[in-house]
Amino acid sequence: MDIERYATYGENDQGGVTRPSFSPADIEVRQLFIEEIKEMGLEVTIDGAANIWGKYKGTGKKRGSIVIGSHLDSVPNGGKYDGPLGVLMAKEIVKRLIESNIRLDHDIEIVSFTAEESNDFNLSTFGSRSFVGRLTVEMLQDARDLKGARLSDELKKVNGGLDKFKMMKNMHSDKLAFIELHIEQGQRLESANIPMAVINNVVGTYRSTVKVIGQSNHSGTTMMQHRKDALTASSEMILAVERYCQGQGDVVGTVGKLVVSPNAANIIPGQIDFILEVRAEKTETIQQALEAIQKIWQEIASRREVKIQQEVFLDQKPVVLDHDIVTSLVETARDMNEPCLILPSMAVHDAAHMASVTKSAMVFVKSIDGKSHCPEEYSQPEDIEKAGNLILKGIINLDRILSMKSYNFQ
Amino acid sequence: MDIERYATYGENDQGGVTRPSFSPADIEVRQLFIEEIKEMGLEVTIDGAANIWGKYKGTGKKRGSIVIGSHLDSVPNGGKYDGPLGVLMAKEIVKRLIESNIRLDHDIEIVSFTAEESNDFNLSTFGSRSFVGRLTVEMLQDARDLKGARLSDELKKVNGGLDKFKMMKNMHSDKLAFIELHIEQGQRLESANIPMAVINNVVGTYRSTVKVIGQSNHSGTTMMQHRKDALTASSEMILAVERYCQGQGDVVGTVGKLVVSPNAANIIPGQIDFILEVRAEKTETIQQALEAIQKIWQEIASRREVKIQQEVFLDQKPVVLDHDIVTSLVETARDMNEPCLILPSMAVHDAAHMASVTKSAMVFVKSIDGKSHCPEEYSQPEDIEKAGNLILKGIINLDRILSMKSYNFQ
Repeated sequence: MDIERYATYGENDQGGVTRPSFSPADIEVRQLFIEEIKEMGLEVTIDGAANIWGKYKGTGKKRGSIVIGSHLDSVPNGGKYDGPLGVLMAKEIVKRLIESNIRLDHDIEIVSFTAEESNDFNLSTFGSRSFVGRLTVEMLQDARDLKGARLSDELKKVNGGLDKFKMMKNMHSDKLAFIELHIEQGQRLESANIPMAVINNVVGTYRSTVKVIGQSNHSGTTMMQHRKDALTASSEMILAVERYCQGQGDVVGTVGKLVVSPNAANIIPGQIDFILEVRAEKTETIQQALEAIQKIWQEIASRREVKIQQEVFLDQKPVVLDHDIVTSLVETARDMNEPCLILPSMAVHDAAHMASVTKSAMVFVKSIDGKSHCPEEYSQPEDIEKAGNLILKGIINLDRILSMKSYNFQ
Repeated sequence: MDIERYATYGENDQGGVTRPSFSPADIEVRQLFIEEIKEMGLEVTIDGAANIWGKYKGTGKKRGSIVIGSHLDSVPNGGKYDGPLGVLMAKEIVKRLIESNIRLDHDIEIVSFTAEESNDFNLSTFGSRSFVGRLTVEMLQDARDLKGARLSDELKKVNGGLDKFKMMKNMHSDKLAFIELHIEQGQRLESANIPMAVINNVVGTYRSTVKVIGQSNHSGTTMMQHRKDALTASSEMILAVERYCQGQGDVVGTVGKLVVSPNAANIIPGQIDFILEVRAEKTETIQQALEAIQKIWQEIASRREVKIQQEVFLDQKPVVLDHDIVTSLVETARDMNEPCLILPSMAVHDAAHMASVTKSAMVFVKSIDGKSHCPEEYSQPEDIEKAGNLILKGIINLDRILSMKSYNFQ
């Protein structure tokens, strides 16, 4: 595998990788990747969002391709695996097919999506969202990053471009399936001591801004019983979220961002602004969590005489991945005699967007200590090997299934 | 009373007063005050710290003066009472003595201390601390505010100056007593429905920086049971402080400043930095509180697997005010048939520093809703009147007591 070699692009002195899309390191790694897959004989296409597609032609008996891949960009000071694992494994799989002289009935395509990670344009999963049409030229034409650079100019640097966006819609019908390999970024597999999982759903994510309004006052002269401390009220609210979610098991709730006003050692906080995030596999689960949390929060607010103002700004519904592909991958694992869980993905990946235009699924490989987006991100070679084999065998099976079922190409 | 008239200096459009020391509004109000007390026939001295002293000479039978006063500066968007009440009441009291043709055996002196409030030089109670020698020329010569203005230059603008600091030490022996009238800034008097209190102690204040170190992680992929959330840990710690102090009654504990890292909606907080403040009338009470809090925090830290690092940066011991003056004031109130509590001051005032060079005490007047440092700051005229009478009668009694006891002038 090329993990270590690719990780030298954007390598920093903390042992991490800093390779956001359009950065010099990203431009270099893209060039390297394109050269290498061209050398392998793949037919390379760069679409409007600068996603890189590399096609290994099939026997020609069947039209369309099975796509495998992920992304090559990283967060600042990220790890070596989040993203590159899926792209480099795709390259490895095609290499093995070539070396073994195997051509499938369908084409096999590698993809590397642009700017999957949170980035300065505030456009995560940019490549896949653009590809499926969720981001449009109209929405993107004025986009600039924090330094004022235009997204349209950045795209040109890497052979994409808003003028090439039209082509992407025409590419959809050709993509019959998409399988993304990714590290888990959590500890469910590690806890279960199982090397990999087939992902059947992508959780929904709900976020709201929460304003807790108490009363600023002097920290010395205001006795405990006369306080309307917005921070102690918020503390109770935050613990209520934690307690509720711990008790459920199928939902996670987080307050990751919180700002105190006026934020001085000798002033009782008068206002707290925080963001509540709730994620679960099912819309109902999220709804139930929100209702339960609201109820507890109302009691806290009325007891403590503080006001709560809340505004939803994200309500991303859960995504159901393709049942056929999930089943096929699970059966493949069973045939391989490899233990494998079926899990929802707790984070959004490119596959969640690809699912809107083609049959999609994911495979997760165990993360050590659940770490990701940091230099310590690690998955064991033997687990990666197993997941790679699952996908290799999976696409061979899928090639057969797709042929048998004679799917309608949209 | 001149409260409303003085409040027009630095009046803002929110109905508040913005009059930090050395601001144009402060310079104007100082000029006004000096002119008015000169017109009353007082002998005005501006010391090195630009504190304004106005002496109403006594009969000459006894050496030294009884000082009454407070400060004229305000916090940004503060109220009309915090500070000016004590200074303007002192002026009013001397006016009444003059009008009634009363001269006491001791001189009566009015003082307005410079920069009592938190200010851009980070030097609250600047005037009194300088006067008593707790701030020295060495400590102040390089002091600059946030905009880079030198304190030494600002002092010159108002006829003070570091070169005049030496004179202040020589003034100490002349000051036989200091009584400061101030609004309570809390709700103890309002709760008890009593107009005023004699203050016998000034609470000690302890502050430490607290760092809670958990583990930053992805808010979606990290299941509840695998989290080391520094914010939920801190929430529990903050509530523990509140709960402990509520249970005691004689101690207040506050977390007023708190910062979350990395502070993003989709990242479990890895580190929280906050400031713990504990105030109580007795050193032992503070110690007991800190020990109890530490014990609970240790349990939280070990259960949640987070680390706590703590560093004390303020350990201001409680100040015991002068027993004789407190007793005399309480007796005076009793003679007047006015209900009056004996309370500790939960905040530091100029009197707390003056206590290190002369017999000092304070009188608090009831604050409506306990509000201070805001435009809504208010005390009722009838309560102010009572407190004013208490001080007027109090200094007449004190003049007699000081004469009888023939205090040693240091």
